[in-house]
Amino acid sequence: MKYSQSFIPTLREVPTDAIIVSHRLMFRAGMIRRLGNGLFSYLPLGLRSFRKVEQIIREEMNAIGSLEIKPTVVIPGELWKESGRWDSMGEALLRVKNRLGADFVVSPTAEEAFTALVRDELSSYRQLPISLYQINTKYRDEIRPRYGVMRGREFVMKDAYSYDADEASLDKSYQDMGRAYRRVFKRCGLSVISVKADSGAMGGSGSEEFMVESEIGDNTLLLCKSCDYAANVEKADCKPDFSPRLSEELAKAAAASTPSVEKIDTPNVRTIEELCSFLKTDAKTFIKTLVYRAIKVELQGAESEEAFYAVCIRGDLEINEAKLCALLKAAEVSLASEADVVRLTGAPVGFAGPVGLSQLKVIADFTVTAINDGVTGALAKDLHYKHVAYGRDFQAWMTADVRTVKAGDRCSLCGGELYEKKGNELGHIFKLGYKYTKSMNVSYLDEKGARQIPLSGSYGIGLDRTLASIIEEHHDDAGIIWPLTVAPYHVIIVPIKYDGAMKAAADKLAEDLERQGIEVLLDDRDERPGVKFNDADLIGIPYRVVIGDKNLAGESPKVEIKRRTEKESRLVELGKAVGELKEKIQAELSQLS
Amino acid sequence: MKYSQSFIPTLREVPTDAIIVSHRLMFRAGMIRRLGNGLFSYLPLGLRSFRKVEQIIREEMNAIGSLEIKPTVVIPGELWKESGRWDSMGEALLRVKNRLGADFVVSPTAEEAFTALVRDELSSYRQLPISLYQINTKYRDEIRPRYGVMRGREFVMKDAYSYDADEASLDKSYQDMGRAYRRVFKRCGLSVISVKADSGAMGGSGSEEFMVESEIGDNTLLLCKSCDYAANVEKADCKPDFSPRLSEELAKAAAASTPSVEKIDTPNVRTIEELCSFLKTDAKTFIKTLVYRAIKVELQGAESEEAFYAVCIRGDLEINEAKLCALLKAAEVSLASEADVVRLTGAPVGFAGPVGLSQLKVIADFTVTAINDGVTGALAKDLHYKHVAYGRDFQAWMTADVRTVKAGDRCSLCGGELYEKKGNELGHIFKLGYKYTKSMNVSYLDEKGARQIPLSGSYGIGLDRTLASIIEEHHDDAGIIWPLTVAPYHVIIVPIKYDGAMKAAADKLAEDLERQGIEVLLDDRDERPGVKFNDADLIGIPYRVVIGDKNLAGESPKVEIKRRTEKESRLVELGKAVGELKEKIQAELSQLS
Repeated sequence: MKYSQSFIPTLREVPTDAIIVSHRLMFRAGMIRRLGNGLFSYLPLGLRSFRKVEQIIREEMNAIGSLEIKPTVVIPGELWKESGRWDSMGEALLRVKNRLGADFVVSPTAEEAFTALVRDELSSYRQLPISLYQINTKYRDEIRPRYGVMRGREFVMKDAYSYDADEASLDKSYQDMGRAYRRVFKRCGLSVISVKADSGAMGGSGSEEFMVESEIGDNTLLLCKSCDYAANVEKADCKPDFSPRLSEELAKAAAASTPSVEKIDTPNVRTIEELCSFLKTDAKTFIKTLVYRAIKVELQGAESEEAFYAVCIRGDLEINEAKLCALLKAAEVSLASEADVVRLTGAPVGFAGPVGLSQLKVIADFTVTAINDGVTGALAKDLHYKHVAYGRDFQAWMTADVRTVKAGDRCSLCGGELYEKKGNELGHIFKLGYKYTKSMNVSYLDEKGARQIPLSGSYGIGLDRTLASIIEEHHDDAGIIWPLTVAPYHVIIVPIKYDGAMKAAADKLAEDLERQGIEVLLDDRDERPGVKFNDADLIGIPYRVVIGDKNLAGESPKVEIKRRTEKESRLVELGKAVGELKEKIQAELSQLS
Repeated sequence: MKYSQSFIPTLREVPTDAIIVSHRLMFRAGMIRRLGNGLFSYLPLGLRSFRKVEQIIREEMNAIGSLEIKPTVVIPGELWKESGRWDSMGEALLRVKNRLGADFVVSPTAEEAFTALVRDELSSYRQLPISLYQINTKYRDEIRPRYGVMRGREFVMKDAYSYDADEASLDKSYQDMGRAYRRVFKRCGLSVISVKADSGAMGGSGSEEFMVESEIGDNTLLLCKSCDYAANVEKADCKPDFSPRLSEELAKAAAASTPSVEKIDTPNVRTIEELCSFLKTDAKTFIKTLVYRAIKVELQGAESEEAFYAVCIRGDLEINEAKLCALLKAAEVSLASEADVVRLTGAPVGFAGPVGLSQLKVIADFTVTAINDGVTGALAKDLHYKHVAYGRDFQAWMTADVRTVKAGDRCSLCGGELYEKKGNELGHIFKLGYKYTKSMNVSYLDEKGARQIPLSGSYGIGLDRTLASIIEEHHDDAGIIWPLTVAPYHVIIVPIKYDGAMKAAADKLAEDLERQGIEVLLDDRDERPGVKFNDADLIGIPYRVVIGDKNLAGESPKVEIKRRTEKESRLVELGKAVGELKEKIQAELSQLS
């Protein structure tokens, strides 16, 4: 392809809203342009890399026997009403009414469409397992789309769905997908972190997220310095630095030598820090108590629209609301309002404590069970209790792990030190279980002729995000540094001037390389060499071949070859350029395969 | 691919709403399934053929230097407001409001998105011409979607747009596209009829439609038996079977010997047929006069919201409302209501005529200018005039061709007989002129530094429709007969039983064929041979290889090879099967290239 015949509008300037490097570079390299808020057009260069990512994903899906289909992007709303997500999905779901008043959604994910298809076609256990996927347009009505295609409103997702007769089969489908995903990311040159994630609104159990490190990541990850433990902060656990009491009896026994509870005046003292300095003691001796409001709690079969809880944790730690939310199976948890705190504890904010608390169920983090001589709020202004012992002076309605694990905590697997990273999710695999097959009435007849409901799984990779993440990982100050597998072209040929002998050599080299299956961009523009070099670096083509008059002259004409990562180019005989490039390119491609 | 590992749910029955053969066969062959009204999922077999059509189109677009990009499917409504189509497009445009109240459309076509992109990037004449395309999801909110993917709501379209500095360049872009389209349809094995079409709501001048014959076609085409004239009835003209008077003077002279106009009683006579029998004369002597109401007329610079016209035509002919609409540059024309007719002609419906008509502008079809002794309504109940001569007894405000051409009329090019066909549009190329570039303020600086507006063109092919049309043209009672270029697989191998020597031979043959780049479906199902043969015919794989125990036995094992179009299979030595199939397949592929 000749540069002048493509459409690669490179830029020196970047839009002011482009905060992250991939957004800046995709824009500057002429890969994308903005069409609207959170809506981007891929230009030819961007689309070439996009299609390579797409093809890698397709090959790996096909390799595990998943079958590609193509449902529509606009999906009948009735299917979403059947699954329940028409109501539960919230405003990120773009709902449309057509001229006849029928409801539709612009697909953000396609559990319903696939499940409806399988429901119609599945009759016998002999058809299982079924694994289907699509690579198709999705829309999610982000309120504040940003970071370019990293968090756009419209995007392309590979979404796959498996339908299996039993847990073992579902587990195989799930493991196959995980393996395929690891291969996809490897082939794209991406370092991914595999984490067990909170499956959130998707429901079901058994899920794995494939994350890439990113300053602007949506997720906080905790990783172990010593082993490969990695978890989303929402689920991360750690090795206890205390001895939890497994029963209230044990707790009572531990408190045998603790003096009785004593009320103390703590005038104008509210925070843990103030208490520490007032009492000259350590935050670890405090029982921090926070009142939480939970919405739509579905705990233990009972549902309640709204419920309040007193959540206790050791004073030096923070409560993890995601864990609390999952524990309560609630739609949402948040700190109770000041008025609610006063109403429920009889005291202003800052003096809650589990002792004598009658109006609230107490949830104690495991750390609290180890406290046998602690300090806590006394349910009255400017008063605290000391010598408080769990099991003796108060009971918990429930003990659980609701602690926010943070850098410096110890790995629950190996005891190594944990550290934090911000991460962005590129892929996610889930065991959905019966979630959609049950609500949408999918069934089949088993070997004995009995009606059964299949298990299913859901598996997604965001293509745009994957592409942007490759750039996040592979770039320098001058621009993108494409891994060969996803580079828009393998080689850029830059004649110093596209004229005379340089033109002839450039044309012939391009032709010879293309005949070997190597993808070539020939910079035939009438621009200064510096401009062409800068653009070559910016758009990140892995190999650059510079053709200049001086090197062409003489008995053994030469060209300069430079890998995008190298500082200096090397002189190579023109006659050997094709062979050398082919060899290097094949070696790199096979390394990424 | 093993049949049992794909997902090809063939059926004997067809849905009752499947009227046309492509819908029936795509459904029965397990290529598509219905997801909602006018919404279809492509299953693996259907998607394979779909992707082949897509790839053919992509290759031919790339071959003429058009560049693939990928805008979003969901487009900001503001762009459609700029172009004016937010209001003019009508209810087929799916408009969406998101959670923030912003307007969007689900793209039915993408003039706006492409023009907005070019507007931002175009600065100099040196960048022109630009030709860009996408192959992407489209949505049109058909009130009554039907005929399967032939007229669905969601579909995939290849839409290309060119931007050119002058007419000559636009013409080249347009001709290149026409050439590419002809190649696309040839490679797909489709016989297309190229017609000059009414460009309708798309505006602009210079357009060509690529039609396929279809019983349920939206378009009526007129074709010449003697030459390659082909036109949509909305625009078709024919050789005059009369001598039009080029001026009113000539008309007057021709009427020199005609008696004066005479009023005659015609009690209870209203229709032309009744008049003919009453006056014992031929319909060709009548001046049929109909009152039309036109909306949003933009004729000769003047705009009017509503206007009425008396349109006259020779009694044996019909008025073509599409021609009338185009003539008046109106948004819509329709027969006036009875009340309007009475108000404007002073007589009930059936007695309108151009003589003495003061309240209406008269538009005379060219046929009327040849009438120098005719009959027409006398603007009063039960009265007609006879001896009416054009130019002498009435003048026309405008003379024009507003005649509906029909089978039996004579070709305007060669005088041959015209015949009718119903056709479906697969592709359409348009010269848009300045339509979008002007309304959306696109400009560039020419060689002299002067600001200019580029010309543009719009070029579409419907992929789903193209695929369905291939089946319409290539099938028999047993099923589809795929042209090799778009067949989901080239060869189907059917072992009588997938076991023992037959299994071994089938596996090896499949492997050997695949190594040659031939796409193979191996029917490994535990089904009766009859079921497998029927399915092979239904899904239309071009070559079938049957492997049976008897033919395998002996010193020179043989297999049966049959082209889908052939009745009988031939025995071929197993060792020669790969060579023979490869040769035949390559020959057929190159014939379609």
